[in-house]
Amino acid sequence: MPESKPKSKAKPGSKTKPPAAERAASKTAPAPAAPQHIPWHTVPLEDLNPLLQRQFVVGQEIMLARILLRKGCIVPEHSHHNEQLTYIVEGALKFYIDGKEIVVHAGEVLCIPSSLPHKAEAMEDTVDLDVFTPPRADWINKTDQYLRGEK
Amino acid sequence: MPESKPKSKAKPGSKTKPPAAERAASKTAPAPAAPQHIPWHTVPLEDLNPLLQRQFVVGQEIMLARILLRKGCIVPEHSHHNEQLTYIVEGALKFYIDGKEIVVHAGEVLCIPSSLPHKAEAMEDTVDLDVFTPPRADWINKTDQYLRGEK
Repeated sequence: MPESKPKSKAKPGSKTKPPAAERAASKTAPAPAAPQHIPWHTVPLEDLNPLLQRQFVVGQEIMLARILLRKGCIVPEHSHHNEQLTYIVEGALKFYIDGKEIVVHAGEVLCIPSSLPHKAEAMEDTVDLDVFTPPRADWINKTDQYLRGEK
Repeated sequence: MPESKPKSKAKPGSKTKPPAAERAASKTAPAPAAPQHIPWHTVPLEDLNPLLQRQFVVGQEIMLARILLRKGCIVPEHSHHNEQLTYIVEGALKFYIDGKEIVVHAGEVLCIPSSLPHKAEAMEDTVDLDVFTPPRADWINKTDQYLRGEK
């Protein structure tokens, strides 16, 4: 139920806090007091490999990522403790997950529980929104070699 | 960093767990073991008031909602402990938040920290994706009278 009287509108010392990405990587930092207004066109579009580009915005406990995959792009099997919701906006991804193949088309959502291994393949050029909680520290810290074709 | 060896792929007893909405409303329920594949067209589109419709999918700690607002729709000021990310897909919402007016257009994201009061007004017909962590128990339990024009 929504709270009719919030406890506090702004927290002392909020102006001295580090940026969102650093906060997300630190489990001990307090929540931000101010809203962040972020147009996607101001967020760097990261080239992970020739078929995969990514942008993300990071809150305190949520990350929202916008992923662009070219047809044939393969995201190798991996798993993470972060719970994931994937919403396909355009195109289609085939997931290999839980012993099954699940094709998620535009207008469909896949909920991926924490620590469940999954692989994905772009059946066509695809725009995918991924939501995670907590934020993916490996994406923030660029230690996501599995997406960069590195061992 | 992704885990190379997940701890478990399926948890015992997962078939007897309640549906996602009930699990989300219960803080004590264990995480789901299986992925959920959900096309939006299978999710009930709830009419909250004549200018506001809503669908949502619920994971364990994340909720993804798709909100349709007609021009002139007002979401009265409210706050909630749930952290929120709002992504405007079409249209524009004017937020009254943190002592400011912020117009969030299509292609823009607003991160709303936990417990920060906010009001919104649809400047045009709008499609809005809202992400929350944890899931909004008041939406799941339909105790969100502030959206239904009820006192």
